[in-house]
Amino acid sequence: MTGDKKIVIIGCGAGGGTAAQFARKIDRKATITIFEHGKYPHYSKCGLPYAISGEISEFKDLIEFSEDWFKKEHIDLFLETTVDEIDIKNQIIFAKKGNEQIKKEFDSLILATGAKPFIPPIQNIQKENALLNGVHVLRTIDDGKRISSSIKKGKKATIVGAGLIGLEMANSFYKKGMDVTIVEALPNILENTIDNDMCEPVLKELHEKTKLCTNHTATKLEEKDGTIDRVFIKDNKTNEEKKVETDILVIATGAKPDVSLAKSIGCKIGKTGGIIINEKAESSVKNVYAVGDCTEYKDFITKESVCIGLGSIAVRQAIAAGINAAGGKYNLPKGVLLTRTSEFFGIEIAAVGPVKNACQNIPVLYGKFKGSSLPDYFPGGKPILMKVGVHEGTDRIVSAQAVGINVAQRINTFACAILNKADVEDFKKLETAYAPPIAPTLDALTLVCDVASLKLARKRR
Amino acid sequence: MTGDKKIVIIGCGAGGGTAAQFARKIDRKATITIFEHGKYPHYSKCGLPYAISGEISEFKDLIEFSEDWFKKEHIDLFLETTVDEIDIKNQIIFAKKGNEQIKKEFDSLILATGAKPFIPPIQNIQKENALLNGVHVLRTIDDGKRISSSIKKGKKATIVGAGLIGLEMANSFYKKGMDVTIVEALPNILENTIDNDMCEPVLKELHEKTKLCTNHTATKLEEKDGTIDRVFIKDNKTNEEKKVETDILVIATGAKPDVSLAKSIGCKIGKTGGIIINEKAESSVKNVYAVGDCTEYKDFITKESVCIGLGSIAVRQAIAAGINAAGGKYNLPKGVLLTRTSEFFGIEIAAVGPVKNACQNIPVLYGKFKGSSLPDYFPGGKPILMKVGVHEGTDRIVSAQAVGINVAQRINTFACAILNKADVEDFKKLETAYAPPIAPTLDALTLVCDVASLKLARKRR
Repeated sequence: MTGDKKIVIIGCGAGGGTAAQFARKIDRKATITIFEHGKYPHYSKCGLPYAISGEISEFKDLIEFSEDWFKKEHIDLFLETTVDEIDIKNQIIFAKKGNEQIKKEFDSLILATGAKPFIPPIQNIQKENALLNGVHVLRTIDDGKRISSSIKKGKKATIVGAGLIGLEMANSFYKKGMDVTIVEALPNILENTIDNDMCEPVLKELHEKTKLCTNHTATKLEEKDGTIDRVFIKDNKTNEEKKVETDILVIATGAKPDVSLAKSIGCKIGKTGGIIINEKAESSVKNVYAVGDCTEYKDFITKESVCIGLGSIAVRQAIAAGINAAGGKYNLPKGVLLTRTSEFFGIEIAAVGPVKNACQNIPVLYGKFKGSSLPDYFPGGKPILMKVGVHEGTDRIVSAQAVGINVAQRINTFACAILNKADVEDFKKLETAYAPPIAPTLDALTLVCDVASLKLARKRR
Repeated sequence: MTGDKKIVIIGCGAGGGTAAQFARKIDRKATITIFEHGKYPHYSKCGLPYAISGEISEFKDLIEFSEDWFKKEHIDLFLETTVDEIDIKNQIIFAKKGNEQIKKEFDSLILATGAKPFIPPIQNIQKENALLNGVHVLRTIDDGKRISSSIKKGKKATIVGAGLIGLEMANSFYKKGMDVTIVEALPNILENTIDNDMCEPVLKELHEKTKLCTNHTATKLEEKDGTIDRVFIKDNKTNEEKKVETDILVIATGAKPDVSLAKSIGCKIGKTGGIIINEKAESSVKNVYAVGDCTEYKDFITKESVCIGLGSIAVRQAIAAGINAAGGKYNLPKGVLLTRTSEFFGIEIAAVGPVKNACQNIPVLYGKFKGSSLPDYFPGGKPILMKVGVHEGTDRIVSAQAVGINVAQRINTFACAILNKADVEDFKKLETAYAPPIAPTLDALTLVCDVASLKLARKRR
């Protein structure tokens, strides 16, 4: 099957794989080629902690689009293949698979090069150009398998970084019966996910089930027989140093967009370090699109550029890039809402819109409410802590955060409100679904808006 | 505590109780009086099937606002008190509690008189001006207690009516180990809740766990020793008659607004039989408000009057009436969305906006999608069947229905979309929350909109 249009995609994560899928939907005849440096086709990176915990039985279950699928769709997938050079003038890709040299022309190029884990400057973390034995990052199936093979009940695991992935990994280790320490340099956990005042239910669990050391920096590693043995952590306030024995160390301090190829062809890189893209998922270079963790895009509320790292957004950008690269037409919304969720230690968290720290230049008033997932008279209801942010000038909802049970879908309702520029005064009257075993007559969802609405009214009196 | 303003509320269900609560919030000094003909203050009618099934341990747990609460709020609650007459010219209520005559002046009156069960014309259903022994309706705690006391494992229960309450009761009886027959005159179940093509997952359970006789009318009852023994049901197509042995018969064929008092003072009654109210929850008579099951209000989409019978809406109308009657200002949205949900036999259903049959005069195109509650690779995902209705002229979302698991909160997101007049083309791009144990990268919520969007595009080609 050869068509006129030639589309090349670099990277076959959620972004690259989805872009190929949607390009194929639009153009049944285009020649679509994907180069992926890893061993596996399109799989869920976000699923890795659950394959490690054993909830997902095998790592290969994470593969969402198999090599066979790509074959069936006549998409040429090159695994374990590295792109060495892009001749942007002549629109040619030079890649290498083992000793084989591959040269591929393109009409449209989609960069889905992802991100590389950020390795903090911890003494002795590298040994002979690799991470010290027992030190891990978690970006790939191979990373996951390595971690998995070193898990043992009663052993000690340390995680550096208390963001989403750090806490997901803490939970996985805990489920495996390990003794878990979490080291976080900031004074609080989940810094970019939810505000500090929303963390209490999570902190309670962490304090019970792990050793949580916030305000601590990992400074140095000590090895024994070539493997990690101890990590030194320093109290950022007192400078006091402690040694933590550990059998595994996982670095979960975020990732940096992998933009080396993009830079080499002159794509504009934004202040967050990601490839700047527009509503069509186009980079600044003609015929070059970019999607996923290697990009940056505008925040819907703050209008600031944000580097995202969320699979859900990678997929949406990939839909746009795939469709547009294949000659269709698809515009992304005018900014990302950053709708996000996770679950650890039995607590679900979810949020949409910028956290408080990201709203320095916007007058936001917050309402908070502690409700229940069910009517008071129905057994089994669980607490839901909610927070809503309202723009003081326009009364529009700009953010929402929730912690408890079944909160992700509640946050989706706020995502819809924000996307539609809904006013808190209208939204608080939203007719939500009610049935005793399902939800209260007035859901925490709208009750938190009543609180914000009252605060607004008081301020204006 | 006596104030200038005198507010009288007739009926202390969810509507009356909530109206009193919100009137009190606005005016701390008003004299607020409630007359309730039943024995109990504000309780959850919707919770009755779950007190019968035993999930809620005692009927008294259903009471949401106790007599003590009303006392504390200085609201004069008269239980077992019947309002005989309203002198609307002089704004005086005449009521009777036992032999005591009560006369109460009002500045604002709130009618929350609810609805009376509709009793279909079944031969022998009445005996000596009461329902035949063993025949029940389910509107009050006393009804619930009566049903509860006659439940026995292995006994036979028949329910007439396969609407929400009929199926909730069927599930309660099933949980109690009874042998359940459901008789429904229409060809399908849940007629006003979800469209026929959405019922399959529920029908599957009903066929497995109950005897479901759609297209059958209950025609006659036979008694034995003064108690129901058999119900005759007639096939509406063939006219064939069958006898069904039964120990309990529950009539769940809907309710009719109780508007006798409203009529006596000249309130305009609409074509559905409910008191017509406006956005302030005012009836057509000055200073008289009406809320809940005794009212009718406009549907947000069809603009037709609808008689609602949903606790969630009664509460919202009561908020408006309570606030406005007490001198505050609160407008209801310009129509009801009819957001609704329930759960039976392990299946959750939820919907918002008019069912297909109610959209005869509106060009609605439907998209349908069968997705999963979780990503394919994560174990434990359950099917979710979704349907979205889109106005063909404006592309606006007008309705959504969902059957499966965790669907109510998904329907709330559609409620937000409908209230904000969201376009299916924008909504399909909604950034929903994703995490492997919580929801897929692309939720059924937006995927169903992709289907509708494609159908729209094809139609316009």
